[in-house]
Amino acid sequence: MTDALALARDLIRCPSITPKDEGAQDLLSRTLGGLGFTCTNLPFGDVKNLFARRGTDGPHLCFAGHTDVVPVGDEKSWSHSPFGGTVADGKLYGRGAADMKGNIAAFIAATATFVHNNPDHKGSISLLITGDEEGPAVNGTVRVLEWMAKNGHTPDVCIVGEPSNPKEMGDEIKIGRRGSLSATLTVHGKQGHVAYPHLADNPVPKLAHYLVALSDTVLDVGSAHFPATSLQVTNVDIGNTAENVIPARATAMFNVRFNDRWDFETLENKIRSILDRVGPDYDIVFRRGAHVFITAPGEWTGLVRQAVTDITGKTPAMSTAGGTSDARFVSQYCPVVECGLINETIHQVDEHVRITDLETLTAIYGRVLEKYFLR
Amino acid sequence: MTDALALARDLIRCPSITPKDEGAQDLLSRTLGGLGFTCTNLPFGDVKNLFARRGTDGPHLCFAGHTDVVPVGDEKSWSHSPFGGTVADGKLYGRGAADMKGNIAAFIAATATFVHNNPDHKGSISLLITGDEEGPAVNGTVRVLEWMAKNGHTPDVCIVGEPSNPKEMGDEIKIGRRGSLSATLTVHGKQGHVAYPHLADNPVPKLAHYLVALSDTVLDVGSAHFPATSLQVTNVDIGNTAENVIPARATAMFNVRFNDRWDFETLENKIRSILDRVGPDYDIVFRRGAHVFITAPGEWTGLVRQAVTDITGKTPAMSTAGGTSDARFVSQYCPVVECGLINETIHQVDEHVRITDLETLTAIYGRVLEKYFLR
Repeated sequence: MTDALALARDLIRCPSITPKDEGAQDLLSRTLGGLGFTCTNLPFGDVKNLFARRGTDGPHLCFAGHTDVVPVGDEKSWSHSPFGGTVADGKLYGRGAADMKGNIAAFIAATATFVHNNPDHKGSISLLITGDEEGPAVNGTVRVLEWMAKNGHTPDVCIVGEPSNPKEMGDEIKIGRRGSLSATLTVHGKQGHVAYPHLADNPVPKLAHYLVALSDTVLDVGSAHFPATSLQVTNVDIGNTAENVIPARATAMFNVRFNDRWDFETLENKIRSILDRVGPDYDIVFRRGAHVFITAPGEWTGLVRQAVTDITGKTPAMSTAGGTSDARFVSQYCPVVECGLINETIHQVDEHVRITDLETLTAIYGRVLEKYFLR
Repeated sequence: MTDALALARDLIRCPSITPKDEGAQDLLSRTLGGLGFTCTNLPFGDVKNLFARRGTDGPHLCFAGHTDVVPVGDEKSWSHSPFGGTVADGKLYGRGAADMKGNIAAFIAATATFVHNNPDHKGSISLLITGDEEGPAVNGTVRVLEWMAKNGHTPDVCIVGEPSNPKEMGDEIKIGRRGSLSATLTVHGKQGHVAYPHLADNPVPKLAHYLVALSDTVLDVGSAHFPATSLQVTNVDIGNTAENVIPARATAMFNVRFNDRWDFETLENKIRSILDRVGPDYDIVFRRGAHVFITAPGEWTGLVRQAVTDITGKTPAMSTAGGTSDARFVSQYCPVVECGLINETIHQVDEHVRITDLETLTAIYGRVLEKYFLR
């Protein structure tokens, strides 16, 4: 039997600051090999990735995760060495404890128990592990999913082991995420001296009118599973240091976090129409970030949610909040749910996980496996 | 007899980049001494100043000017050495030719002719010459005027020799100037992640609303001798480089060029009332620049204007446009008019003055002296 705590601790001891691996994936391969998984290393660029599958038939449940971690920050501020895997006060400390080596360890521990109890279960269990989630996310999950599709490994359902709970186990699972669209808005004018405003054309008042229109327009009031789309102006750059000069141009940057009432194209068109109503004196350049995605509540989301309830006694919220994760890539292939530990300390000094939470998550994953394969 | 061209050329050959003098004022003292002026050097700080007076009774006509010049800029771009005083194509080239060594030379040449023809004229002629007009304007005209007041030299009328004509002699004389008020407007918010706008408070939309209100409010439509008051936003500073962060504060700078419908206090109150109508979430810091001033059209302005018409055949506009000059300080003591050469090349490479214009200005100043003292 695999012990989630021991495996999580061993993983933390590999200082795999993105995109470094430092033995983390080999440790997983050895452990999974012992459980009957076929392991394939899938390096792309400077990123190590691992695909491990037990079984060849459907249905195929995939666990997706990452072994890379964010930097430690100010190492002196840590109470315990960030790569020491120290256990103290009922907690396991270390960079990656919650995001997301603990989650990987819990899934493998749950799998070990499940295959021990059900050696001949139908279908397949797989793990998609990347070393590029905290980095550019180019040579990781995207490339592995392409390889999986080409080689007959596209899963039927997926659980992403990101720490999904704000405070307590059972708080939330995540079924989608808002999209992100950034833009640079530039208004051109004509430079001149403030004493001769009739010879100049000040772009700043025009920009202010555009920003008022953008900020005051209600894009929507939310959708079934998403909060309202939010447009936030994040910067204005005039670059003028002379108090007596009317500047030649004014630039603003903004970011839109948008729900499933929009895609990039409809949202960009809407923004242009808001600006056009103010006037024609602008240029805009859009930068498309993450697309919006949702796993519509159904069989798979219901199964995971029920597993959480079975173990914690709580009914988790179906959330679409928070930053990006690789679930956005998986969502293009199959239903995907994010379910894991508590995210309160991730990316911070003294990242840790309560050992009882690690055990709870192992039990939740075990319940997911039972409900999916033994139904 | 003093030759305006020769004196202007000799002054240009003193490279008196503000606050340096390089012999310019001693040259004036020697010339004026020869014409019966009593010369007093009035150094304040690192600035040389000169007060010269011929006569002790009233009425007292003062010519105010400066011997300092702005830097030459890119010396290689000059067609003639900026301190060479070259005459070519009917023009005198050099830094200060128009702003304002040529004007000083014209006044002294006119005075030389006038006192030659009227050795026993009533009243006094004086020159207030500073080396600090193009610099901070702290240890120059302000201090000399204070000294003059203390010592019984406050004039009855003043002509400032700034180049007042945009294109041709006879275009304009200046009888006042708008005031200048600058301000920094700060809106405080609460920093946060763009994905969690409900946990942050974005100051940028608020700032945009304030800027729209400031820019769209008509402060006035002008007054008898002034154009409309103009408020120009010159800069916005957010200082945020992270596209996914809502900034903590947003700052804008603006400048108001205001006419004689306002003073600093009424204008600041008006600006606060515009901002208050938008909301209370701002801080503002005002910086008071030049105050507004006007020499109401009357005997003195009419005399100077008629002198220009007598010589040029044109009726000059009574302008209040343009940047600051030391006339603002003189205006606190007596009626003041700016009347001089053409300002088209000032502060530029190849600054120059047409020799015919120098002769025209000498004739105008001579006519002013005749009309003022021989009436």
